[in-house]
Amino acid sequence: MSPALPYLTLSSEEICALHETGAQTVALQAPEGLKRHLFRVTKQLRAEGFSVCISGDPCYGACDLCMETKAMADVLLHFGHAPVDDTPGVIYHFAPASPDPAGVKNALPLLEDTTVGLVTTVQHVHLLEEVKGVLAENGINAVVCDGSERTPLHGQVLGCSFEAARKTGAREILFFGTGVFHPIGVALTTGARVIACDPYTGRCEVADGDALLRRRFVQIEKARAAESVGILLSLKSGQKREELAYELAALSENAVVITMQEITPDALLNLGFDAYVNTACPRLAYDDQVRFPVPVLSPQEFEIVCGKRTWDDYAIDEIL
Amino acid sequence: MSPALPYLTLSSEEICALHETGAQTVALQAPEGLKRHLFRVTKQLRAEGFSVCISGDPCYGACDLCMETKAMADVLLHFGHAPVDDTPGVIYHFAPASPDPAGVKNALPLLEDTTVGLVTTVQHVHLLEEVKGVLAENGINAVVCDGSERTPLHGQVLGCSFEAARKTGAREILFFGTGVFHPIGVALTTGARVIACDPYTGRCEVADGDALLRRRFVQIEKARAAESVGILLSLKSGQKREELAYELAALSENAVVITMQEITPDALLNLGFDAYVNTACPRLAYDDQVRFPVPVLSPQEFEIVCGKRTWDDYAIDEIL
Repeated sequence: MSPALPYLTLSSEEICALHETGAQTVALQAPEGLKRHLFRVTKQLRAEGFSVCISGDPCYGACDLCMETKAMADVLLHFGHAPVDDTPGVIYHFAPASPDPAGVKNALPLLEDTTVGLVTTVQHVHLLEEVKGVLAENGINAVVCDGSERTPLHGQVLGCSFEAARKTGAREILFFGTGVFHPIGVALTTGARVIACDPYTGRCEVADGDALLRRRFVQIEKARAAESVGILLSLKSGQKREELAYELAALSENAVVITMQEITPDALLNLGFDAYVNTACPRLAYDDQVRFPVPVLSPQEFEIVCGKRTWDDYAIDEIL
Repeated sequence: MSPALPYLTLSSEEICALHETGAQTVALQAPEGLKRHLFRVTKQLRAEGFSVCISGDPCYGACDLCMETKAMADVLLHFGHAPVDDTPGVIYHFAPASPDPAGVKNALPLLEDTTVGLVTTVQHVHLLEEVKGVLAENGINAVVCDGSERTPLHGQVLGCSFEAARKTGAREILFFGTGVFHPIGVALTTGARVIACDPYTGRCEVADGDALLRRRFVQIEKARAAESVGILLSLKSGQKREELAYELAALSENAVVITMQEITPDALLNLGFDAYVNTACPRLAYDDQVRFPVPVLSPQEFEIVCGKRTWDDYAIDEIL
């Protein structure tokens, strides 16, 4: 599909592809910011003879497929993300965003190398060739790589998978996208100097992984005193690391596995544990600690608490 | 089990019953207010040789069994509720509360009849015989009845099932328990005069169903202008009324079925529909309207909007 099409309207090619599956009932799923387009899509699909149902629960990624709703339909049409796995019966509609690729010029003054790795998130992947061109015009050679199976698009990173950055082998990496976590994740997993370039605001900065590490070390120290530790096991389709959760629970007699669909501050407060270990979306521990009532550690951080890993081997959690 | 046992500690009879099932792994589930006891129960079960995992998601009743977590264990130990269905592999621990049954004396000045129906919620059901005795000493004949299959305890009502009240056939019904919804529900489903007696505060009052009805009528009128209507279909074990949801969706071309695990104000806001119809826990529409951004109607209320039901046939939604 083309990024020039109206936002969250299905193209005739997509409608044809749906008809070709033989589907009669289509389930729709989208992240929060796109949900309000789903009734328009519903009407478009009904006009084409399909029955429709919508998944209304929060959706944070393609790791969060509404499997129960999918089971009520012939096919799941999932908006806004690229696949993280090969779950059958799912069709993805990427909903690309289109900021100006020339915005990458703002990053030029911060670059120290003439060769940089280049990565972004799903909604900007289609712009990477143009971004690369702008950089080339300015004497910068940008290296774009394929990532893991979880990040199928060329140059794509996820909050749980930075393989496309790692594979560039570059000493300097440019992240073209929004937010602070992805560039910090790239920095901590690759050891490279990372420049984050926000294509909407034009703001560029060197990602500071140290500040995150200092905050994490405080949480690790706090968690050492915990007499009860909940090992959080997500029930989401692409976040359910059951084996890891039970391995971690076996590290301490104070630990027990706790399954959760949505990991929320209220839920953790009500459970009343002294600390938690997050085996779901890695970003939960890193981004949302300030919202949680007690330390929420990554698997690697809990291994440090249990003496199974040293500080020097600190690593960012990834789902590869 | 006896109400005299410490709160949320398993009795030796319960441990024996668990051993007799042959279970090795036990999943634990409890409503929010009881969740913080689950780690103590975990340690008790581990000392008996069981493996344990905990369901951390919100739990509002026995209609809300954690089926996916249950599938990871041999048996589900569900705290705080009586069964609403015959799902196999679930053991219920009632967690009774024990206010003073003599508190019912506070209701005596409000009673107009010498025969009253008597109902309560699950945590006080074990007190009904004593309450009945106190009433008898004061010249009042209390009638206690069995309800529906969904309310297996003698004299028990749920927010979605008032059959035990209806069956008393009484013109006056005494609700011994907390909160305002259950007595109002009893009043609106039976047409009886209902006295609510809170055994903790001693406060007694005549349940006022009219105020609820007036508020609901406002929402019905607001919903008439809706150009998009989401028919909410719960994914919870005992709240999933799929046939009803699709029947309601068929009443209007502006309606579509939306599946949800948790129906929250944020989720409804993000979906952006003009109105919703709730086929999940009936109390969501009646109790929580003030939290929702747009009208959330009951199935019967939506039928009024669609002209399939008249105002005179207004009825409280029940899951019988």
